[in-house]
Amino acid sequence: MRAVTFAGDGTVRVLEVPDPRLEQPTDAIVLVRRAAVCGTDLHTVAHGDSLETGTVLGHEFVGEIVETGAAVRGHRPGELVVGADFTACGTCWWCRRGDHWECPDRRFFGTGTAFGPPLPGAQAELVRVPFADTVLRSVPDGVSADAAVFLGDTLATGYAAVRRADPMPGDTIAVLGGGPVGQLTALAAQACGAGTVLLVEPVAARRALAAREGSVAVDPADALRTAQLLTDGRGADVVIDAVGGPRGLESAFELVRRRGTVVSVGVHTGDWALPAGRAFADELSLRFAIGDLMRDGDQLLALVRSGAVDPAVVAEETVPLDGAPDAYRRMAQRRTLKSLIAF
Amino acid sequence: MRAVTFAGDGTVRVLEVPDPRLEQPTDAIVLVRRAAVCGTDLHTVAHGDSLETGTVLGHEFVGEIVETGAAVRGHRPGELVVGADFTACGTCWWCRRGDHWECPDRRFFGTGTAFGPPLPGAQAELVRVPFADTVLRSVPDGVSADAAVFLGDTLATGYAAVRRADPMPGDTIAVLGGGPVGQLTALAAQACGAGTVLLVEPVAARRALAAREGSVAVDPADALRTAQLLTDGRGADVVIDAVGGPRGLESAFELVRRRGTVVSVGVHTGDWALPAGRAFADELSLRFAIGDLMRDGDQLLALVRSGAVDPAVVAEETVPLDGAPDAYRRMAQRRTLKSLIAF
Amino acid sequence: MRAVTFAGDGTVRVLEVPDPRLEQPTDAIVLVRRAAVCGTDLHTVAHGDSLETGTVLGHEFVGEIVETGAAVRGHRPGELVVGADFTACGTCWWCRRGDHWECPDRRFFGTGTAFGPPLPGAQAELVRVPFADTVLRSVPDGVSADAAVFLGDTLATGYAAVRRADPMPGDTIAVLGGGPVGQLTALAAQACGAGTVLLVEPVAARRALAAREGSVAVDPADALRTAQLLTDGRGADVVIDAVGGPRGLESAFELVRRRGTVVSVGVHTGDWALPAGRAFADELSLRFAIGDLMRDGDQLLALVRSGAVDPAVVAEETVPLDGAPDAYRRMAQRRTLKSLIAF
Amino acid sequence: MRAVTFAGDGTVRVLEVPDPRLEQPTDAIVLVRRAAVCGTDLHTVAHGDSLETGTVLGHEFVGEIVETGAAVRGHRPGELVVGADFTACGTCWWCRRGDHWECPDRRFFGTGTAFGPPLPGAQAELVRVPFADTVLRSVPDGVSADAAVFLGDTLATGYAAVRRADPMPGDTIAVLGGGPVGQLTALAAQACGAGTVLLVEPVAARRALAAREGSVAVDPADALRTAQLLTDGRGADVVIDAVGGPRGLESAFELVRRRGTVVSVGVHTGDWALPAGRAFADELSLRFAIGDLMRDGDQLLALVRSGAVDPAVVAEETVPLDGAPDAYRRMAQRRTLKSLIAF
Repeated sequence: MRAVTFAGDGTVRVLEVPDPRLEQPTDAIVLVRRAAVCGTDLHTVAHGDSLETGTVLGHEFVGEIVETGAAVRGHRPGELVVGADFTACGTCWWCRRGDHWECPDRRFFGTGTAFGPPLPGAQAELVRVPFADTVLRSVPDGVSADAAVFLGDTLATGYAAVRRADPMPGDTIAVLGGGPVGQLTALAAQACGAGTVLLVEPVAARRALAAREGSVAVDPADALRTAQLLTDGRGADVVIDAVGGPRGLESAFELVRRRGTVVSVGVHTGDWALPAGRAFADELSLRFAIGDLMRDGDQLLALVRSGAVDPAVVAEETVPLDGAPDAYRRMAQRRTLKSLIAF
Repeated sequence: MRAVTFAGDGTVRVLEVPDPRLEQPTDAIVLVRRAAVCGTDLHTVAHGDSLETGTVLGHEFVGEIVETGAAVRGHRPGELVVGADFTACGTCWWCRRGDHWECPDRRFFGTGTAFGPPLPGAQAELVRVPFADTVLRSVPDGVSADAAVFLGDTLATGYAAVRRADPMPGDTIAVLGGGPVGQLTALAAQACGAGTVLLVEPVAARRALAAREGSVAVDPADALRTAQLLTDGRGADVVIDAVGGPRGLESAFELVRRRGTVVSVGVHTGDWALPAGRAFADELSLRFAIGDLMRDGDQLLALVRSGAVDPAVVAEETVPLDGAPDAYRRMAQRRTLKSLIAF
Repeated sequence: MRAVTFAGDGTVRVLEVPDPRLEQPTDAIVLVRRAAVCGTDLHTVAHGDSLETGTVLGHEFVGEIVETGAAVRGHRPGELVVGADFTACGTCWWCRRGDHWECPDRRFFGTGTAFGPPLPGAQAELVRVPFADTVLRSVPDGVSADAAVFLGDTLATGYAAVRRADPMPGDTIAVLGGGPVGQLTALAAQACGAGTVLLVEPVAARRALAAREGSVAVDPADALRTAQLLTDGRGADVVIDAVGGPRGLESAFELVRRRGTVVSVGVHTGDWALPAGRAFADELSLRFAIGDLMRDGDQLLALVRSGAVDPAVVAEETVPLDGAPDAYRRMAQRRTLKSLIAF
Repeated sequence: MRAVTFAGDGTVRVLEVPDPRLEQPTDAIVLVRRAAVCGTDLHTVAHGDSLETGTVLGHEFVGEIVETGAAVRGHRPGELVVGADFTACGTCWWCRRGDHWECPDRRFFGTGTAFGPPLPGAQAELVRVPFADTVLRSVPDGVSADAAVFLGDTLATGYAAVRRADPMPGDTIAVLGGGPVGQLTALAAQACGAGTVLLVEPVAARRALAAREGSVAVDPADALRTAQLLTDGRGADVVIDAVGGPRGLESAFELVRRRGTVVSVGVHTGDWALPAGRAFADELSLRFAIGDLMRDGDQLLALVRSGAVDPAVVAEETVPLDGAPDAYRRMAQRRTLKSLIAF
C-alpha cells in the first residue's frame, strides 16, 4: 500500500510499504477514507528523534473496516469507523476508569517512540488497529467522514479540556491559541455551557475563523483587557491553554480569575515557575488533560451528529495522498490551518 | 399607584391601589419597568380560590430601585434589577444550601395564598420586595429589560429543570410542552450541552417557534417515533415535563430511555400511578424542580448577557398597563404565547 | 459436578449435574470457593415460575479461575476472582457508560428467566462466566473470600443506592430494611460520607446488628420521630428503600425531607400511587438503582481492602454444599440473615 | 476586657484592652468560651511584620452571643456560636457562589494586615463579629465547645482540602503533615469516603495520634514505598499537602499517581518549579484550597454532631487565658500539638 512516511531531515514522502495485517485477535484492519495532518505530526517530523526513516505517520483517521480479528465483537467489515489516536486495552484498572491514556498498552499511532512503543500510522491506505473494540467507534449516519476525522484527536482534546474544567453554565472561557485544537476547544466550550468564549490568537485569519464560529477573538495584547471587560473585572472563569510551554501557562494565569481553573492541553517539557503564592492566595486550580475518544466518543458523536458542534470548519484543504508532503509544508508554514488527506 | 388586580370571577382589572412602602429594613421598593403575564397568573385567576378581590397580581418583573431599607447592602436606588418570583430570607439552613424554595420566609408575589402567605404582586407601578439583597439581582449593561424579565420565573424554571437532570454533553433532551416554560427549557438545554432538543407540542405555531430557535419540534403523535429515531431506538436521555399533571408524567415515561431521567416542572396535585415495576427494572430517575433566580441568577445573567440564551423570543406582545386585562384574555385563549406589560 | 438446583415446589436440592465448559472465547470457568444465598434466590425458588426443575441456582460467588477462553486477557488460571451477579458484554453503548444492567447481553446467574435469558448459577462447584474480562474482578491480597463474596450483589447494591443518592457529607441517611442489603447499604453510607445512618427494621436482632455496626437502628414505629429528632425536624436527607413494594416507597416518602432524595433498591412490580402533589411542592427526587460490580468493583474492593467496609458482618453461618437446602430454609424463615456456602 | 495581644519581638502578652462594641447593624458581640491557638498565630507572631504591638490575636473561637446589631436576623443573644476565621459580606457575587475567601469584605481575625485590613482577634473575653449572619453558625446540642472550636479553621481547612480533591470512594488519600490541619484532614478524608488515609509525618507522637485515629501513619522516608504498597504500585489517588512551601508540593508530586490530584492547604509564597512535563504527560491536577465555615459549616456540624468526625482529638491542653503565652511557647516548640484557651 501507499503511505505518508518519515523521510528524515524534517521531511515526509509518500512510499509504497507492506500492507498491515492482523496480528492479534483483537485487531482490525481499516481502509482509510480520510486522514488528517496534525500539529503533532509536524512537530514529530521536525524534531525527528522519535522517528525512524520510513515510519508511517498519522493518527487521525476515518475509514471502513476490511477485516477483524476473531475476538472483535463490536465492529464488522464494511462499517465506517473513527479511531482514537492511541490504543488502550479496555480492561485494565485504568481503562475501567476511562483513563485510557494511562493504560500500559498505550501505543500512539504514527509518532515513533514519542509517546511509548511505536505503532504504524494512519496516513496510509490501510491501518492496523489494535484493541479494535476499544479504539474504534462506529460513525453513524448523519456524521460525515470530514467531520468524524476530528473526533480522534483535535475535537477530543478540546472537549477533554472543557470537561476537565467542569465549567458552570454561563462561564467566560478563554482559550489560548487559535490553531486547530484551540478552535475546536472553543466550539466544545460553546456547546457545553459557556457564556462567552474568548479566543486569544495573534494570527488575524485564525481570529476571523473563531469570530465567525461564535467566539470573541482577540490578539494576545488585548486579552487581559477583554477578559476583564467580559467579567466585570474578575478575569476568565476558566482558561484553556492550547499553546503549551511556559508561555501558555503564564498567559493562562494572567487571565484567570480568583478561584478559577486553568486547563492545559498544550505540550510541556521540563519545569515551569508556578506562581505558588498567588495560586494559594487565590485558590486556583491547574489541570492537565489529554483527549480520549475511547472515553468521550459517544458524547462527541452525539454533539456532532446533532449539529451542536461542526469540527470540519477547521479543515482548510483536502488533498489526495500524493499531496500530503505539500500539505505538511503549508501547515508548517502556517499557510493552512489543517489539512485532510482523502483516499 | 395603578396595578393589575383580581376582580373576581376569573377576571382582572387595572385599579388605583395604595403605594407600597418599606416595611422592614431589608425591603426595597422597585419602580416596575416590565412585568410579564405568566401561566400561573392565568391559572390562579381562573380558579380564584387563593385570591381576594383586589389582590395585586404578577410575579415576573424588572424595574428600578427607588428606595431601600437601612439593612440593604447590595442594591441602591437607581439600579436596574430583576426579581425572583418568590422571597427567601437568605440566611437559614435552606437558603444556605441554595434551596430558597424551602425557606420558611417564602412568599410568592401576587398569587394570594396559593403558595403560602400572600405578598402583593408586581404587575404594578411599584412593588415592595422583601429581603432585597437575596431576592433581587442587578441587571448588567447588555441585558435588556425585555430579556431580564424572564429570569425571575420562566427561564429560571427551564434552567432549573435542565440542571436538575444533570445531562451529559450531547444528550437528546425531550421537552414536553411548547408554552413559555417549555420554550425556554429548550433554549436552556441547548445552551447547557444538549445534542438535540426535541420539543413536543400540539400547537403548530409553538412548534414553529421552537424549530426557529433550534429544536426539533414535533406533534405529540410523532414524539415517540422521533425520540427513537434520534437515539438509535433507545429513547430520550432526559425528558423534561413542562406540561404537568398525570398526562405530562405519562408522556415523559413513554419517551425516556432506560436509566434516563425525567424532570418535571409542571404543576401536580394528588397522586400519580407511577409505573414502579418499569422504573425499577430500567433504573429511572424522577425529579421535581422549581425555578430559583436566587440560586441561579448569576449563571442566567451570564448566559443571557453573552447571547447564549435569548429568552425574549417568547414575548409575543408588549402592552401598556391598561392593556393587561386584554393581554390576560389573549394568553388564556392561547392566542398569544406570552405578554409583557411595559410601564 | 455438584450444585444447588431447583427441585420444584419451592424447594432446592443438591444434585450431580454436568460440568460447565467454555462456550465462547470470552468465557472463563471458575472453581467456586464461596457462594452466598440471597433473598432473590429465596424469592425465585418460592415463586418458581421463572425456573425449570434442575436449574443451577445462585449468583454471588468467589472462586479460582481454572480455565479461560482464548480471548480473555485480564484474568488467568489460578487467580481468585469475584463475579458480578449478571453479565454484560463490556463494549456496547450501555457498557461504555457503565450501565451494564442495560446491556443486551445481560444474563443473570441462576435465576432462570426472571431477568432475561437463563444462565446457570454459581452455587455449584464450577461456574461458567461469560465475558470474563468484564464480569470478573480479581480479589487482591487482604480481601478474604468471605468478604469478597458480597461484592457481586449485596454490597454492590447498597453502594449503588448510596452513590445514586449523591449525598453531601454529614447527611442523615435513612435505610429502610435491615436485611442483608439494608445492612450493607448502611455500611456503604457510613463509608461514603453520611453523618448519621438511621436503619429502620422491625426485627430486633437485625436492629442490634445495625447498631453494633454504627447505625442508629429503630423500629418502623419510631422511624419518623427519630428522623426528625436527628435533623431538627426536617426529615432524612436521603432515604434508601431496601424493602421494595408500595410499602417501601410510602415509608421512604414519609421520612424524606423537602428537596430530599429517595433511592429504591427494593423490588417493584406494577404501579405505585406517587404523591405527585407533594413531590412537586417539595422538589423531591425518586431514583431506582441496581448494583453493578462491573462499574463499581474497583471502588468496592478498595473500601473493603482498606477496612472502611466489612461486608462479612452479615454472614451468620457458613455451610458445606450439602447444607445448602437447610440454609435456604433457615433464611426463608428469617432465622438467619445470610448464609454462605463453602466449597 | 482581657485578651492575648502581640507584645513585639515574637511574644504575646495578656493585656486589659477596651471592650469591643457594635459598629455596624450586621455585627454581633460574642462572649468567648473557647479559643484555640493556631499555627498561623505562631507564624504571624514570630514574623511580626503584619502586627502592631497590642493587636488582639486569635481567629478560632466558640462563644455566646451577648449583643446583635439591628440587622442581624439569624442569631440572638444567649446562643452558642462558632465563628469562621475570616469575614465575608454574604451577598456579593463571590459570596453567592460560596467563595467567601474572595469577598472584598474579607477581614481575617487577629492577624493584623497579613490577609487584608486588620480585625481584632478572638483570644479575648469578647470579640466583635462583622456580618454575623454569614460569619457565625449556631452550635447545636450534642456538639461540645471543645469540638466546635475547630470548625472555624482547622477542620474547615481539612474538609475543604478533601472536597476540593473530589475523591472517589475507596481512594487512597495521602496527607502530608501531622500537625493539627493534617490530622483533621485525615479525619475528614476518612469520613468522606477514603479507603486508606496515609499520613506522612516525621514526629513519632503525631504519627501515633494519626494511627490511633485510623490512618496509616509513616515517616516521610517510608512514604513513597507505603503509598505504592497500598495502591499496587500506582501511588496515592489524592495527595493533600498540609505542610506548604516547595517541600510540600514536591513530596506531593512524588506520591501522587498518574491522573491523580494534589490539593495544597499549606502556605505558599513566591514561585515553585512545577514539573510541567510530568504533570502534562500524567494529566495531573493541582488545586489550592482554603477552609470556609461559611460555605461548609452545615456539613461540618452534621459530621461532628453525628460522631463521624471528632476534631477535639487534636487538643492536647486547655489553659486559662493567663496561660496563653506559655501555651504559645509550647506549641512553637512543638511540645504540644494544639492548645485551647478556656474562659
